[in-house]
Amino acid sequence: MTESRQPRIVIIGGGFGGLSAARELRRAQARLTLVDRQNHHLFQPLLYQVATAALNPSDIASPIRRILRNQKNVEVLLGEVTAIDLEAKQVVLPEESLQFDYLIVATGASHSYFGHDEWASFAPGLKSIDDALEIRRRVLFAFEAAERELDPARRHAWLTFVIVGAGPTGVELAGALAEIAHHALARDFRHIDPTQASIILLEGSPRVLPTYVEPLSEKAREQLVAMSVEVRTGQMVTAIDAEGVSVGPERIEARTVLWAAGVAASPLARSLGVPLDRAGRVRVNPDLTIPGRDNVYVVGDLASLDQDGKPIPGVAPAAMQEAVHAAKNIERTLRGQARLPFRYHDKGSLATIGRAAAVADFGRIKLSGLVAWLAWLFVHVLFLIGFRNRFVVLFEWAWSYVTYDRGARLITGSPSRRLVAEPEDREPESIAGTGKGVGDG
Amino acid sequence: MTESRQPRIVIIGGGFGGLSAARELRRAQARLTLVDRQNHHLFQPLLYQVATAALNPSDIASPIRRILRNQKNVEVLLGEVTAIDLEAKQVVLPEESLQFDYLIVATGASHSYFGHDEWASFAPGLKSIDDALEIRRRVLFAFEAAERELDPARRHAWLTFVIVGAGPTGVELAGALAEIAHHALARDFRHIDPTQASIILLEGSPRVLPTYVEPLSEKAREQLVAMSVEVRTGQMVTAIDAEGVSVGPERIEARTVLWAAGVAASPLARSLGVPLDRAGRVRVNPDLTIPGRDNVYVVGDLASLDQDGKPIPGVAPAAMQEAVHAAKNIERTLRGQARLPFRYHDKGSLATIGRAAAVADFGRIKLSGLVAWLAWLFVHVLFLIGFRNRFVVLFEWAWSYVTYDRGARLITGSPSRRLVAEPEDREPESIAGTGKGVGDG
Repeated sequence: MTESRQPRIVIIGGGFGGLSAARELRRAQARLTLVDRQNHHLFQPLLYQVATAALNPSDIASPIRRILRNQKNVEVLLGEVTAIDLEAKQVVLPEESLQFDYLIVATGASHSYFGHDEWASFAPGLKSIDDALEIRRRVLFAFEAAERELDPARRHAWLTFVIVGAGPTGVELAGALAEIAHHALARDFRHIDPTQASIILLEGSPRVLPTYVEPLSEKAREQLVAMSVEVRTGQMVTAIDAEGVSVGPERIEARTVLWAAGVAASPLARSLGVPLDRAGRVRVNPDLTIPGRDNVYVVGDLASLDQDGKPIPGVAPAAMQEAVHAAKNIERTLRGQARLPFRYHDKGSLATIGRAAAVADFGRIKLSGLVAWLAWLFVHVLFLIGFRNRFVVLFEWAWSYVTYDRGARLITGSPSRRLVAEPEDREPESIAGTGKGVGDG
Repeated sequence: MTESRQPRIVIIGGGFGGLSAARELRRAQARLTLVDRQNHHLFQPLLYQVATAALNPSDIASPIRRILRNQKNVEVLLGEVTAIDLEAKQVVLPEESLQFDYLIVATGASHSYFGHDEWASFAPGLKSIDDALEIRRRVLFAFEAAERELDPARRHAWLTFVIVGAGPTGVELAGALAEIAHHALARDFRHIDPTQASIILLEGSPRVLPTYVEPLSEKAREQLVAMSVEVRTGQMVTAIDAEGVSVGPERIEARTVLWAAGVAASPLARSLGVPLDRAGRVRVNPDLTIPGRDNVYVVGDLASLDQDGKPIPGVAPAAMQEAVHAAKNIERTLRGQARLPFRYHDKGSLATIGRAAAVADFGRIKLSGLVAWLAWLFVHVLFLIGFRNRFVVLFEWAWSYVTYDRGARLITGSPSRRLVAEPEDREPESIAGTGKGVGDG
């Protein structure tokens, strides 16, 4: 063990946080191990575009191994961390444990169904590539099922899409679904008119994009309504099942429900044995270490830290800034210097709604519509990892923009059980015999 | 039922055959229904490129609905045909039946494990997008598992890839796997050297590409060997399990086995109640109708027909020619003319092996190497459906060609059970402590 004098740094998670930390430590005299249960880094802000058939998975995901190929002091491990043993300084995986001197935990967050985990199978959320492909499958299948359905009420339920939660992801999904229905699929069916689909966006708080300033929320609402999205704010979901959603006494029959509401921190947080906030996030010290352990850092969506009396938001730029800061604090420690407190610099927020529709808040400058959308486009393509992805994504977008088409309209994988339509008593010649015969088109 | 005088034509299958038939019938005074269990047409000749992470699913697949969007006399139905009732002139789906006056069956073929269906889970074949993604997952995961494996024998088994069958698909897969190991992944790992991977191509007959003329088989073998593929001809597989392959008394320890051998016709053939050949294909009349039914046609891989004493091969051009011919015979019947016998025009065959490596047989002109590869490239891009796909595919190829990289290196979906490595007794600090420490690179 001749190399044992080099400190060992383990990073858990290959998202924006974990990857930023690894890169920041590229010159560190240390041996880094980055562990992730996926083999790829995911550009999560564009995940809704995979869910809505505009982009392919590999347009927004890149193997972590390839990204870090040339950084010789890091090794990448595909594996799921099951626990962290602070006393033994070990990260525990099913088949092995990794010894660490310094640890950066950047495992992020997943959906929270507010105690209603039984809703998960009826209303999938959007965190991974597999989530996105499942949503894509459900959305595309719903139109196929509606095309075959003769009963008007059931057909309407297939053509009703409910999105729960009007944060950035919910708004993006609603806008993209409206575009699919009104443009991409408009002319492809014979028995249904996809433009008649209902896209309903439900939000518990009084306005969409509740973390944005009020005028931008209003702009976003206007742009959604212009795209025929039904926006309902101040409405709490009380039940979700395979047939639809209940909002208090009201019932919405909908075969496709998407979840874009609560956030729950990764369960790994619990094994740290330190205080968590209500969403399960780790309450970190100002220098991003955890209470009582000056060699263990938590960054990104898993970390909970207030600044100027407000929580630092769970967005990619915050995760990246925190990760870089944690890495710098480790380097300072290695050089015998004191750790510094973290300070978040808010560079602004952007949310897109659809074609040439977005809102942007850069502090004093607030934009909406085409200009905001161009800013959004620029920022997102700029930060996409790797030239190849940038180029392909730009081409796909330009193509979609000009043709209104969506390239990735594939139903793949095994449909989950609820996608199977109930048996019907359709007459043998019913399709040929409906009023909307194929000769009419 | 005012439209009932228009004849109803049902086409089962949206592959090369079904789609060609539908297009040929675009001016027919008839109501067409095309049924497929997938929502997309698949450009199957490039499927191995999805399996080997070079292309995305949507690069080679297009929604059938979109392809036929502007053909108003056809409707597209997503559904799986379970039986054909010739007496009642009905195509039976789980929830309904479709009445037909004329029927074209173009459901193709899937893998045959020569009576060893238990091999299917150990050695997946390549027919659908889901097959391709499963193969991609296994191949990429094998390198990840090898990276974590400390036992040399088990590591070698993870780095051994066996392809059973050296027809065009087997040859393409072997070549692409060799490129992945030697180029795309070469620099990405710390503990293994992907260029040491063994790619073994097993073929029961005496030469690779057995349907090609002997000099081209030899050229193909040479090009494979130059890419470090181990080519073993005249070797019959006698057993396959989770740990490897047996070839008679010899045992090959391999964690990844791919099946590119036998072909079995779609089981739907049986419900026609007419004579089938050994592979389950329907023995059609020279006019492509089935014995005893002059309104039912079978085309493509599901049809068995000899010409000049030789069977017409199960390739895309044959399927398309047969489909067009069947459509023309239906149109002739509608006009009161006699049906004509089918004649296959062999325009040549092409098989690709890797970068600038291919063989081509255009009758008198036989090519190999770069020229054959350029011919292959030209033909395949030309026939890809839709401009968008062509452009993206060309870009992806050019990118891969220049950078040796592969864009779609994502492990997604649930790994199947056999991918889970056995428990190991690795020491806690083993990764940091191996001779190939991360500081060495």
